[in-house]
Formats: sequence, structure tokens, C-alpha cells
Amino acid sequence: MEIFWDEIPIQTKEYLKVVDITDKVQHILQARGVRNGSVLLYNPHVTCAVTVNENDLELWQDLLEAYQRLAPLKADYKHNAKYRGMAREENAHAHILNTLIGQSVTIPVRNGDLLLGTWQAVLYIELDGGKKRTLIVQTAKMEGQ
Amino acid sequence: MEIFWDEIPIQTKEYLKVVDITDKVQHILQARGVRNGSVLLYNPHVTCAVTVNENDLELWQDLLEAYQRLAPLKADYKHNAKYRGMAREENAHAHILNTLIGQSVTIPVRNGDLLLGTWQAVLYIELDGGKKRTLIVQTAKMEGQ
Amino acid sequence: MEIFWDEIPIQTKEYLKVVDITDKVQHILQARGVRNGSVLLYNPHVTCAVTVNENDLELWQDLLEAYQRLAPLKADYKHNAKYRGMAREENAHAHILNTLIGQSVTIPVRNGDLLLGTWQAVLYIELDGGKKRTLIVQTAKMEGQ
Repeated sequence: MEIFWDEIPIQTKEYLKVVDITDKVQHILQARGVRNGSVLLYNPHVTCAVTVNENDLELWQDLLEAYQRLAPLKADYKHNAKYRGMAREENAHAHILNTLIGQSVTIPVRNGDLLLGTWQAVLYIELDGGKKRTLIVQTAKMEGQ
Repeated sequence: MEIFWDEIPIQTKEYLKVVDITDKVQHILQARGVRNGSVLLYNPHVTCAVTVNENDLELWQDLLEAYQRLAPLKADYKHNAKYRGMAREENAHAHILNTLIGQSVTIPVRNGDLLLGTWQAVLYIELDGGKKRTLIVQTAKMEGQ
Repeated sequence: MEIFWDEIPIQTKEYLKVVDITDKVQHILQARGVRNGSVLLYNPHVTCAVTVNENDLELWQDLLEAYQRLAPLKADYKHNAKYRGMAREENAHAHILNTLIGQSVTIPVRNGDLLLGTWQAVLYIELDGGKKRTLIVQTAKMEGQ
């Protein structure tokens, strides 16, 4: 058993944005030559999130609209009041959504492939952009049967 | 360290449904003879989810009602508008909830048992049924201390 | 590859409460002498949750208020109706939020450190306190590169 660490840099211009990073995760897996094991995609940031769902532009709009209904960009947030005037810090909505969508995704690997379902893509969800971010990919190489 | 892959087939008739799959996960663990390690229950689908909570029929109704309040079945979804007329594809609510509830659950294993708490059951949440689904169970066998 | 199990006891007085447990997780990591691997923080309870986000008292108020908007403490819950009169069991809101925030957190470990981002803290979210709880920490020691 061995583990490897890699990084995926992400740059967004938009404040809210979904980005398909499946290819980047698969590229790391192949470069590491891992046949069996798992990939832990870990997000070290607190105002964006990672998940797995479909690559569909219309759905991505629905996701971002739903997230804004659950945690409106503007509301009576105490975190934002503390940082009033620092526009880049008025992001309580993004913190809330990070705790709901989640900070990491673990995907099984078999015979060199991510065991993603037919409609699954690895998605990065920017909730407080445009920013430069870096995601961590920890690949575990195991002895499979 | 070794890993094993198994599948749990699930068939629902209802559109929204909670199913307790704890026994199926425990059966796989025992069949694989894993004493120490972890179980990754991975959902390769995008309109259903997996979680861990209580086996309680009334609670399950509450869960499904709460999920519908958070992501109503009928709303102005762009994903649904694109597939208008294909009833089986008007499921944006299910995609949204998948990203909130999550695609996988990791449960520690010690001395041959899932380390589930007293009230915990492994739950499958169908959000776009009735469908035939298959969940992936990746069991990692480790040397425990 | 080896795994170790430890426990983090938590005692709250408040009904809703966020507690930063980063130091407790780091202490376990150091006591186990794990240089490379991962930490699975697993919550065996059904009415509280664990997540990773910022240590900020104002934000924690925002989180708890947002969670109450998503799953109000008082609503027409069937689970609560069944246990009417047993105040300690009228906690459907907490079950719902547990399924949304999540039961576990997996954090990569490299060179003896949790790979937490600058603003990340490991957070325990009590949703049905004050109670005495115990969280499970499963540390996996791997051969890193």
C-alpha cells in the first residue's frame, strides 16, 4: 500500500460556478499508475465544495439556484456584519453550503479506472469566486482482488 | 492490505423511498472475512443517495418531506425544461439532493463489525424511482491494532 | 499499513452548539506517530454531525441559524409526534440535518500533519444537546511517497 499526493489548480472568474474536473482526476490516476485503490479528492477551502453529479449545463444552473435558495447570498449573517465593507469576506452563504455539500469525495478505483457511474462527473463548486484554488488528490494504491 | 468489491442491487417501486441496507453491508463484510479496515459504500448514480441514520418509519417520512421542502419535485428547473415531456428525466430535485445528502459513506470496521452507533442504520435514499440500481461496496482489509 | 482507533469524548450543555475539535484530532495523530495516511473522523450518533470549516464564532451562529431554517426545530414531524411528551426524543430536525451535513470526515495526512487548509478547523455540530457523545477516530498509517 502506497499513497500519492497531487494537486488540481482551479481558477474561476465567476462568483458562482460549477467546473467538471473529472479529466484532471483521471489524468492523475493514470500518471500514478494506480490500478486498484481509491481517490480522496479533498478540498482545503471553506467557501467552495466538491461533489459528484452530472455534466449538464442546465442542471448546473439549477444547482446554483437551489443552493442560493437554501443559503441566500444576502441575508442577516453575523459573519458578514463583522466583515462589512470587505466585500470579499461577505461569504457566509458559501461557508454554509460548504458544510452541506461537503469537503471531500472518495471514489473507488478498479483496474485503473475510477468507478464512476455512467452519468457521474467529478464537480468543483465555486461559491465565492472568482478565485484561484488548489484541491488535494490523495491516491491510495492497494492490492485488489 | 487488500480490497474487495461487491455490489448491492436495489429495486424500488416508489418514486421516493428510504431502504435500510445495513444487513446487506454486514453480509458482505462477513463473506469477505474482513476483521479490521473500512467499508466505502459508493453510489454510482446521480438521482439517489446513501447516508447513515435511524431505522424509523416515521422519521423516514420526515426525511422525505424535508427533502421535498429543500428541493421541490416541481419547480422552474432548467434541466427539467430541457427534457420536458420525458417524465423520467424531470428529476432536477433528485440531482440537487444527491449533492446535499452525498454519494458515499465510509464506515470503520473493527473486530469484524461495522462501527455503527446504537441507532445507526445504513440507508439508501431513492429520489427518482422506481428504478433498479446497483451500489458499490469497496471493503479495505487492514492490519488493526 | 496499519490502522488505529481512538475516541474523542464531547460534552455539551447547549441544545445547538459548534465545537472546534481540531486539537483533539491532531493530538491523536501525534500520539499514534502517523506520518502519512488519512484520518477518518466517524460520528456514530444520529442527531449531531461533523464537518470541516472555519473557527469563527459569528459564522457558527450563522451556521446554526441556517440549519434551523432548513430543518426547523418545531414542525409537523411524524417522528416527534410518535414520541410526543418525551422532550428528549422530539429531534427530527437533528436527524434531517445529520443526513445533510454528514456522518464522517476524511482528512489526508502528510509528513505528520493533517492537510487542513489555512482556514479549516474540524467542527463538531451538536443538534440535540446537551449530551455526552463519543466520536470515533480511525487513523490509517500508509507508506507515503
